[in-house]
Amino acid sequence: MTQRYVRVKTNQGQIHYGLLNLNRSVSVLDFAPWQGGEATGVILKPETYSLLAPCSPSKIVAVGRNYRAHAAELGNTVPAEPLLFLKPPSTVIADTQGIYYPLQSKQVDYEGELALIIGETTKNCSPQEARTKIWGYTIANDVTARDLQQKDNQWVRAKGFDSFCPLGPWIVRELSAGAQLQTFINNEVQPRQSALIQDMVFSPQAVVSYISNIMTLLPGDVVLTGTPEGVGPLIVGDVVKIEIEGIGSLENPVLAIFDPSQSISEPENKQPQKS
Amino acid sequence: MTQRYVRVKTNQGQIHYGLLNLNRSVSVLDFAPWQGGEATGVILKPETYSLLAPCSPSKIVAVGRNYRAHAAELGNTVPAEPLLFLKPPSTVIADTQGIYYPLQSKQVDYEGELALIIGETTKNCSPQEARTKIWGYTIANDVTARDLQQKDNQWVRAKGFDSFCPLGPWIVRELSAGAQLQTFINNEVQPRQSALIQDMVFSPQAVVSYISNIMTLLPGDVVLTGTPEGVGPLIVGDVVKIEIEGIGSLENPVLAIFDPSQSISEPENKQPQKS
Repeated sequence: MTQRYVRVKTNQGQIHYGLLNLNRSVSVLDFAPWQGGEATGVILKPETYSLLAPCSPSKIVAVGRNYRAHAAELGNTVPAEPLLFLKPPSTVIADTQGIYYPLQSKQVDYEGELALIIGETTKNCSPQEARTKIWGYTIANDVTARDLQQKDNQWVRAKGFDSFCPLGPWIVRELSAGAQLQTFINNEVQPRQSALIQDMVFSPQAVVSYISNIMTLLPGDVVLTGTPEGVGPLIVGDVVKIEIEGIGSLENPVLAIFDPSQSISEPENKQPQKS
Repeated sequence: MTQRYVRVKTNQGQIHYGLLNLNRSVSVLDFAPWQGGEATGVILKPETYSLLAPCSPSKIVAVGRNYRAHAAELGNTVPAEPLLFLKPPSTVIADTQGIYYPLQSKQVDYEGELALIIGETTKNCSPQEARTKIWGYTIANDVTARDLQQKDNQWVRAKGFDSFCPLGPWIVRELSAGAQLQTFINNEVQPRQSALIQDMVFSPQAVVSYISNIMTLLPGDVVLTGTPEGVGPLIVGDVVKIEIEGIGSLENPVLAIFDPSQSISEPENKQPQKS
């Protein structure tokens, strides 16, 4: 079976990286797996932890208009170079946590995407070298307030509300060549999005190479590779599920009220530490 | 004398928050000062440490076109709401470190700015409440590849190269009402930028309030408040100095080659940690 790498919070509040076992127990690792983490021998039973997003990125770099049909559906052309934007780390939530519908927007859209997890410090790498820098893959929902995206010059607000980056549920090391991405609303049979990952304009390697020639990517950083056609609005009460073959599915309800306890915690670097 | 809060790296590689004394020694604090850090009694002599940027933000949120004369000089109007953009944390360098001139750009501009340091978790606060969330002030250079800013739809590349956010040299708690910002190139007598901080369109409190109604700001996060008129190009070999009355001055040379050892280190949250 494919190994599934998770990050969990125990009922006692401790955060661990781990391996998810078939019986839903978690084998705790001593470090992040991309930093050589090894099993400690500690096993967490299913009822003793909750899943977090599978990494804690220092930055989330995303690519817009990276599938031709999606660019076209919003009246845009495919750019000559990757169109980059950033989502703040405070947008990240885990599988099953709630996407908050901000009062400032009247149209909040789902955008199902493949997410890349960077495994090592990456600067000025070629597309060939980028293959080895991509440690694994997970699923993301690049939630977007479409009306604010159209109104604002820059996309920080439209893409940057708390909870606007569901990420997970886990990381896998390999992605099959013909993997399909599908997005479902409320368990409808018909997917709203259905596309082959390989139909990206700029490949994962090309995107990582391009970004790394601008900024240094760090271990655990996340790259979002763009959404295919079929984006559309969410309403409060919806449940949005994004599936990628070979990874799994990421499912989040849409809530009217933001629950600060569920998502925006101090990142690991902000915990008070004796210096 | 005004207390100056610093972050330093010792010759042994340890990172500490501290207070800078008049004789340039540093009194080490046990935590970040906005997290209640207190003096440990350890004093670092001047030759035993180097200054880092005074905080390690989980995000840097910046405001564009926040002085009327600057908006006008680039042919823009003042927006009705703060125009936000993000700089990745990998842009941060300290006082005296080198701004790298990327090959991708033919026009790299300085932009002297007042930077705000957030002291506590801040979400949905009013402008009045925002006063208490701004723990202190420092100086920033929002270095911008102007040609790429004009070419790209989003400003991530133009604003996001490694070393494009000199920050420091230290943090002070108070800013005088009539404080002036001035930018000098190569010790010329005539400043290239000279403006009153109070001429901002959106005040520091208004900006923090606006951001916090989108995303949660965390302790140590940085808000850049925009640059006044007088922005202009740098060339390799220049030294750019930004002064703000009551804080000090931030001075950085412009280099053709990026020195990865000087700036982009693993942020504190990315150090391997036993979990």
